[in-house]
Amino acid sequence: MEVQGEMQVRMGKVFLVGAGPGSPDLISVRGLSCLRRAQVVVYDRLTSRSLLAETAPDCERIYVGKQGHGCHAMSQEAISQLLVDRARAGLTVCRLKGGDPFVFGRGGEEAERLSRAGVPFEVVPGVTAGTAAAAYAGIPVTHRGLATAVTFATGHEGAASSAIDWNALAAGSDTLVFYMGLGRLAQVRDELVRRGRPAETPAAVVHWGACPEQRVATGRLGDLPQWAGSIPQPAVIVIGEVAALRERLAWAERLPLFGCRVLLPASGEVEDDLADAVRDAGGEPWLFPRRPGGPHPHEIELLRSELTEGRIHLGAVTSPHGVHRLFCALDAAVLRRVPFRATTPEAMAALAEYGVSPVPSNAFLGETVW
Amino acid sequence: MEVQGEMQVRMGKVFLVGAGPGSPDLISVRGLSCLRRAQVVVYDRLTSRSLLAETAPDCERIYVGKQGHGCHAMSQEAISQLLVDRARAGLTVCRLKGGDPFVFGRGGEEAERLSRAGVPFEVVPGVTAGTAAAAYAGIPVTHRGLATAVTFATGHEGAASSAIDWNALAAGSDTLVFYMGLGRLAQVRDELVRRGRPAETPAAVVHWGACPEQRVATGRLGDLPQWAGSIPQPAVIVIGEVAALRERLAWAERLPLFGCRVLLPASGEVEDDLADAVRDAGGEPWLFPRRPGGPHPHEIELLRSELTEGRIHLGAVTSPHGVHRLFCALDAAVLRRVPFRATTPEAMAALAEYGVSPVPSNAFLGETVW
Repeated sequence: MEVQGEMQVRMGKVFLVGAGPGSPDLISVRGLSCLRRAQVVVYDRLTSRSLLAETAPDCERIYVGKQGHGCHAMSQEAISQLLVDRARAGLTVCRLKGGDPFVFGRGGEEAERLSRAGVPFEVVPGVTAGTAAAAYAGIPVTHRGLATAVTFATGHEGAASSAIDWNALAAGSDTLVFYMGLGRLAQVRDELVRRGRPAETPAAVVHWGACPEQRVATGRLGDLPQWAGSIPQPAVIVIGEVAALRERLAWAERLPLFGCRVLLPASGEVEDDLADAVRDAGGEPWLFPRRPGGPHPHEIELLRSELTEGRIHLGAVTSPHGVHRLFCALDAAVLRRVPFRATTPEAMAALAEYGVSPVPSNAFLGETVW
Repeated sequence: MEVQGEMQVRMGKVFLVGAGPGSPDLISVRGLSCLRRAQVVVYDRLTSRSLLAETAPDCERIYVGKQGHGCHAMSQEAISQLLVDRARAGLTVCRLKGGDPFVFGRGGEEAERLSRAGVPFEVVPGVTAGTAAAAYAGIPVTHRGLATAVTFATGHEGAASSAIDWNALAAGSDTLVFYMGLGRLAQVRDELVRRGRPAETPAAVVHWGACPEQRVATGRLGDLPQWAGSIPQPAVIVIGEVAALRERLAWAERLPLFGCRVLLPASGEVEDDLADAVRDAGGEPWLFPRRPGGPHPHEIELLRSELTEGRIHLGAVTSPHGVHRLFCALDAAVLRRVPFRATTPEAMAALAEYGVSPVPSNAFLGETVW
């Protein structure tokens, strides 16, 4: 950043943005606006990668999340310093966090550091995973007659179990939601039951709630480690009578496209309707390109890694233009990893040029939506 | 709804949408999409009225919130029945609730009713007022070293105080957030202090957090009724050490346009940038018209009532076209209630035609943003 003569660099601003629980469209309208306008995005592992495709082509994207088992790519102090440095260089910074920045997001620490450094900031609240993952599993965390209060607690406060006030939690509200508690299932069960929570209390564990990767297990508190042990991280644990409501209220898993991330090559207005239809049917649309003027190189890379890692489950094309744009950007070999559907004969013919034949309509869609 | 011969009406769907805490752009992208596509919107008092301007011109808008002191315009049972009936008529229904539908939103009861009736539904989580109002007051509800857990409780569960488990709350997590507890400040204080919460625990009360009407009072738990008594409903109460962080982290009130809802007559692309600038400066933009092809009659009525009730604080015009559209839609007498700013000489001249002279730049803006 060049300082011209006596002029001072204009101070930038940091937006502490909650990305929501996982599904990219559960970010707030405000959060998306901040993300799109950011010159720097500093993001964690828990963020939906699809959101990164919303960033500007020349945006600096810095990953600071966890690498492997519990070791951070960057210390909290280094992250805070990074935010301060970029803002002092006059840049607009989006600090993108999974869920809400002020609910176990350590956003408060970053805000303190920014405040001390005199850097202006704005907090953009997000939907926290505790409520959203539960809602996607069909569990209202409060419910008339069952729960008039809900407590959110973290299952890992550093490594120390001693930081958790088990007496308070056990005696506390009807519904308990643990963030990231999978590593200590037996302890959660033992501590709560020992202090009087009935072993038959219903419970649920939700992995990647609101994402195609969502998996839910339910059972009783008493044998939590047995039935929840196979669910991978990250996950939230919901304990309380409300967990039993899932039996009647589970809605996400019943949708025909549940579990599907659907690649939609954009060629015009029709994709918005198609994206809505996919979302209504329980799928997660991945529009490509996301931004006008795209696709941009980083967006192509994002899509390539999603395809390579098997995180895209279906492609749906509406026009030859969309097909050609897709196969110009990416190797046919990578794209052929997913089955495609075509909504028009022209799009189907275009796919055939690349050696792809669309699958029959009901193979992936349950009830077809278009 | 006509049933043709033997054909059955296609079943509609209900979206239980969290509108977020108040600022219209804190709704999720998904929630806004559902709202815009809805054929029926069923909404409460707590919803930002600005969101209603996003609904389609022919959308049926049904208010079911509270009227006056505690009496509902419609019973919960009647609301649930309404949702079922409209869905059975084949309509797409958006049930718009303040905050999150499953956090004291009674969304669980509506979901149960829909489930029993075989009506498909989707839950669209929202940012709950408890976290967002606190965040806008500069209070992270969790914070390393201060709060590893947070409890959300409702201050009014029907009329009965007995429904609240005070022992559990007092013994519970570090941070307590009460929704709608203003009516029983003395009781909240008495019950918590009697059970061992220190009288010197910091606390804050936030009225209309994240809205231009936001007001915050802070103090100690011991004399909560004294310092919080002047804050009007609705408000959330935050009790815990984290409340003291507001002193350093309050950010919203420092922004130059804090407290201002700003009318921006749209004439093209430039308004989006201006809307962002207003929002970045802490104001709440009210774009007019909101939808392409507008303004629609209901949108004009919404704006008229906002102006009449003094809920618009400033107008900013960029072009003669925007000015003319505004003054064609509404009486000049109503529009003259707010001071205007013009960003171009042409817009200023257009305002003069209607007897309006823009105010000097610093009167409302603090630091000017354009």
